[in-house]
Amino acid sequence: MNFLSDTTAPAHPRLIEAIAAANTGFESSYGHDAISARVETRLREIFECDLKVLFAVSGTASNALALSVLCPPDGAILCHDEAHIHRDERGAPEFFTGGAKLIPLTGAHAKIDLSALDRALAEIPEGFVHTSPVRVLSLSNLTESGTAYSVSEVTERTGRLRQRPALVHMDGARFANALVSLGCTPAELTWKAGVDALCFGATKNGALGAEAVVLFPSVLDRFEALQGRQKRGGHMAPKMRFMAAQFEAWLDDDLWLDLARAANARAGELAAGLAALPRVEILHSVDGNEVFARIPEPLADRMRAAGARFYQWPDGSARFVTSWCTLADEIRGLIAAANRFSP
Amino acid sequence: MNFLSDTTAPAHPRLIEAIAAANTGFESSYGHDAISARVETRLREIFECDLKVLFAVSGTASNALALSVLCPPDGAILCHDEAHIHRDERGAPEFFTGGAKLIPLTGAHAKIDLSALDRALAEIPEGFVHTSPVRVLSLSNLTESGTAYSVSEVTERTGRLRQRPALVHMDGARFANALVSLGCTPAELTWKAGVDALCFGATKNGALGAEAVVLFPSVLDRFEALQGRQKRGGHMAPKMRFMAAQFEAWLDDDLWLDLARAANARAGELAAGLAALPRVEILHSVDGNEVFARIPEPLADRMRAAGARFYQWPDGSARFVTSWCTLADEIRGLIAAANRFSP
Amino acid sequence: MNFLSDTTAPAHPRLIEAIAAANTGFESSYGHDAISARVETRLREIFECDLKVLFAVSGTASNALALSVLCPPDGAILCHDEAHIHRDERGAPEFFTGGAKLIPLTGAHAKIDLSALDRALAEIPEGFVHTSPVRVLSLSNLTESGTAYSVSEVTERTGRLRQRPALVHMDGARFANALVSLGCTPAELTWKAGVDALCFGATKNGALGAEAVVLFPSVLDRFEALQGRQKRGGHMAPKMRFMAAQFEAWLDDDLWLDLARAANARAGELAAGLAALPRVEILHSVDGNEVFARIPEPLADRMRAAGARFYQWPDGSARFVTSWCTLADEIRGLIAAANRFSP
Amino acid sequence: MNFLSDTTAPAHPRLIEAIAAANTGFESSYGHDAISARVETRLREIFECDLKVLFAVSGTASNALALSVLCPPDGAILCHDEAHIHRDERGAPEFFTGGAKLIPLTGAHAKIDLSALDRALAEIPEGFVHTSPVRVLSLSNLTESGTAYSVSEVTERTGRLRQRPALVHMDGARFANALVSLGCTPAELTWKAGVDALCFGATKNGALGAEAVVLFPSVLDRFEALQGRQKRGGHMAPKMRFMAAQFEAWLDDDLWLDLARAANARAGELAAGLAALPRVEILHSVDGNEVFARIPEPLADRMRAAGARFYQWPDGSARFVTSWCTLADEIRGLIAAANRFSP
Repeated sequence: MNFLSDTTAPAHPRLIEAIAAANTGFESSYGHDAISARVETRLREIFECDLKVLFAVSGTASNALALSVLCPPDGAILCHDEAHIHRDERGAPEFFTGGAKLIPLTGAHAKIDLSALDRALAEIPEGFVHTSPVRVLSLSNLTESGTAYSVSEVTERTGRLRQRPALVHMDGARFANALVSLGCTPAELTWKAGVDALCFGATKNGALGAEAVVLFPSVLDRFEALQGRQKRGGHMAPKMRFMAAQFEAWLDDDLWLDLARAANARAGELAAGLAALPRVEILHSVDGNEVFARIPEPLADRMRAAGARFYQWPDGSARFVTSWCTLADEIRGLIAAANRFSP
Repeated sequence: MNFLSDTTAPAHPRLIEAIAAANTGFESSYGHDAISARVETRLREIFECDLKVLFAVSGTASNALALSVLCPPDGAILCHDEAHIHRDERGAPEFFTGGAKLIPLTGAHAKIDLSALDRALAEIPEGFVHTSPVRVLSLSNLTESGTAYSVSEVTERTGRLRQRPALVHMDGARFANALVSLGCTPAELTWKAGVDALCFGATKNGALGAEAVVLFPSVLDRFEALQGRQKRGGHMAPKMRFMAAQFEAWLDDDLWLDLARAANARAGELAAGLAALPRVEILHSVDGNEVFARIPEPLADRMRAAGARFYQWPDGSARFVTSWCTLADEIRGLIAAANRFSP
Repeated sequence: MNFLSDTTAPAHPRLIEAIAAANTGFESSYGHDAISARVETRLREIFECDLKVLFAVSGTASNALALSVLCPPDGAILCHDEAHIHRDERGAPEFFTGGAKLIPLTGAHAKIDLSALDRALAEIPEGFVHTSPVRVLSLSNLTESGTAYSVSEVTERTGRLRQRPALVHMDGARFANALVSLGCTPAELTWKAGVDALCFGATKNGALGAEAVVLFPSVLDRFEALQGRQKRGGHMAPKMRFMAAQFEAWLDDDLWLDLARAANARAGELAAGLAALPRVEILHSVDGNEVFARIPEPLADRMRAAGARFYQWPDGSARFVTSWCTLADEIRGLIAAANRFSP
Repeated sequence: MNFLSDTTAPAHPRLIEAIAAANTGFESSYGHDAISARVETRLREIFECDLKVLFAVSGTASNALALSVLCPPDGAILCHDEAHIHRDERGAPEFFTGGAKLIPLTGAHAKIDLSALDRALAEIPEGFVHTSPVRVLSLSNLTESGTAYSVSEVTERTGRLRQRPALVHMDGARFANALVSLGCTPAELTWKAGVDALCFGATKNGALGAEAVVLFPSVLDRFEALQGRQKRGGHMAPKMRFMAAQFEAWLDDDLWLDLARAANARAGELAAGLAALPRVEILHSVDGNEVFARIPEPLADRMRAAGARFYQWPDGSARFVTSWCTLADEIRGLIAAANRFSP
């Protein structure tokens, strides 16, 4: 019963098989392989638009690479104060952009508040040489609190940037989880809502280690620069076919959506079970595969004793992350153990 | 008959099997897995010393990460003019170090000439604030010309730095090939010869994508900084067990040495066959798995027509790279085809 | 009646004279001149300790240079949300440090709140590789609101960092103004209170363009690195004697303290006059040469019509900055004009 | 008899007077002053074109700022191996560009050889992602050997870049000396010859500390970015009027050309005198205010004993730099002393 993170889960067997299948004969390196090309084609179908894609080994890498072609070194990136790019990437965005400034904004449930966004924009006028100008808005979907921005919530926020020479980045480490939760199309949640570049994560949803940076039509002309950054960032893996093969199998037959649905379903069951316990409070809407709950300490201890592993979040709550392979039985067992404790 | 690069070769099946075997259950992420720990232990045995290791997805990444903890942003790195870090990494060392200066040195067969090294050191006095001080010497072994620095050649060069606060980096993208060719121990070729950090490559020698940065005892205290750099460089892959698993299988039962021996043997056979052809000149000592030859253009065309793929090098020569899976029959076939052409 | 900024004021004539006096014959360049040496000696007397100093042409430069030797590229700098280094330097600290992260903290009157500081420290544990560790606390004295941290307020804050490998930077663009207001010694307000490096500004207090980075005994060993950074930042002016000459004249006979006292006195008179006006609110304690007031718009217009120039601050208030050459008559005239308007 | 460097010379009195004259009343800061505007207008007349200008405190700063808007972080800058930007700026270009690579080229008398330039361009094809693409050619005029590129020599070299998306930087720390030596117009030696940006130095030719970055029509659209870089580099001096005032006085009535002519004349006299001495060899054409000579050691000692100060260059030669205030009598005295020694 490991709820620490979806990064502790194994990969889906079909991705392992795809890697083995890709391991035949010689193949062009550095992304010029046939599988990479097929994945790009498939992504065009999925996102219903022209696009360019490249792969990276971690979400930190894909976020930082994307931001590095969206934001100049002396620009600013608006993000939520709890955003992964601000809190959990050891300054990777600052590093890859050459020193851009991240400006953390507040907002409940890890969604950027519109008024906080407006205030930040008001405080940073265009053309004032002393202040890093706003060049990027970064939205995480799922957010760090496991909530999802709806299409209209994305659109509202991206719309605020329209009068500026600014672009929109979406950190989609758990994009699939948000997508199946919202029930919209990939296009609706991204470029149609004003998103210019998506970091599309597979690792947390069944891959061994494969993340994609997707550039939408508005920024296609930055792809050559992105490749340069990928290379000098050490992220142009020589035998790229093995990363592409993961994506191909993952996208094939909507496996990615099925895996996200499974993880989300487990999170829903876990949240329902926890909510029924006395003095347990679910803190955020469970829109994906994460549950944040305030749990009395004795009960939390009991759950740990029953074998559950989860993180204590900085705000004192407990974070449970389900994965594609979390079993419904595990959830039932955990809730049952908790119930035995709190009659 | 693909001799373009050892990066176009497939992975060895035992590494694929190791990945599949590692794909069971939940496992700590970001390098805290059991396999990573076992690999570190194994490397201590192999290198006969205390050491710290971390993994990266490309040689560019491992070189740049290593250099970033060896050289300050305002320091200089001495390397051969043809070094991969200078010619083929899109400025990754400059990026990761925060702007250190690479100073290219000359020398036949891609080995840094001792007199060129001495001249550079003489031109850059310590304590002269206007010039980037020498903080790193980088040696590639195998070199870019497929030659190997012997233990004494390494020692001679690293000895030149002893009076300075400088460290030695070894780019070992083809370290195994150099090692089996020289017949020395890993320790003799590295820390015993004055090397502080080794970039130990597996990708070109049978892995899917796995490179190791090894810190030897002299710089063990920089490991925490290295981890910080790995994280902010996006190279701390979440499911690190899959990279570690490759290394474990590769090191197990000396597979890495066997694969390098096979590739080297093929290169030797190829060089012997080519050398016997009229007007063909082998340009550098074939110490590993690379053969550089000057070949009359009609003969080169004939070889291409027979199915051989190889690069034309900037100096006009042909570069052939053999891999762990190059077949002796392929070499024989190619030489036979060439012989039919040049009676 | 220019209250826009103390950077719009002229230089004190004695500094111009010092520059003319320094313009005789040949002199060693790049800081090796005799005047620079004398200034360092004088600063040792003033700060009652061993120290090293170098000069820069702007406060942005001196702050960024100091931070670059206090904070590693993957570290974090805690500062007030309104700090000049965060709001008004176009990302210079991020640039010079190689991408360190500035973490803005809240607090009334532009002083970092102790609880905000504690919360930030609690949220960023040492040894957690994913988060940029706290390596610097930066305090501005005067603050951006014209208030002064007292010695005990400085000590309280620097004490919070004592358990960490962290250092303290003080942005003293208006250090003299804070000092004469507090009535303590330079040593008491800096190294005795836990400050490791001071950016000691003269430009806003009578110089043409001269700022000093002062390293106190705890970080003297970083001076060589600081010189390297100064050089590669383009801040090692060839004819440094002319910058040193400004400092020498400015420090001589306590001119710097007299100028600060004059500016502070004018600010006090202005605040008193404004406070007596109906519906005018002084927003922050006037500890130096800045007055922030909320002023009814018709009155503000009247003051502008009377010739006063001042900035409207982002929060809607009016900022008045007095300088060493602001005349008491100007203050009286402005207040009189305002009084005529609001009977 | 100080021939160490023109940076050890004092400033011309008219520039000191201009600074004193500028020190009246309040004035807009950060380059928005009236004098800065007048200098820009004057430079448009001098260079016979539209242009934008900003000031910096050192040649290192102006070179690095200019390069930072001409070269992307993953690009390469071609320069002479002895160029100041490569040898004497502690990696400032790497720092300001965010890690661009300087590729040093050979050539006699510190002029880039056309064949070396062609070879470098051939070795770095456009569109090869692994290699930093050539984005800037940097020419120093005067060169580091005191020679001048003629208009046609500049044009030949800049022409080589025409087929690439590359730009041309000229390091004109001693531009005035080159100009009066060549007898051409400022326009002919710069934008008409393919130069996009000029670092126009005054410090070595009579200023206290004032360098200008001039953007010509081809790159005017980069001025806003340049201002951003100036600010975040700490080079937007608050009281910019004092730097502008130096330039105004220096350009007024062709003072800058007169001072360069004086320095050049002294260098010519020195070279003629040295050349007449037995066993003394003048190593490079004396096109400006620098003389490089191979001098028998006993004679060099004698000259030092007579009071002459000069640097021993890395190649063993002696470098003499004359300045605007070097006296013809000093030259005569030195040569006379030398003659007394070598009868």
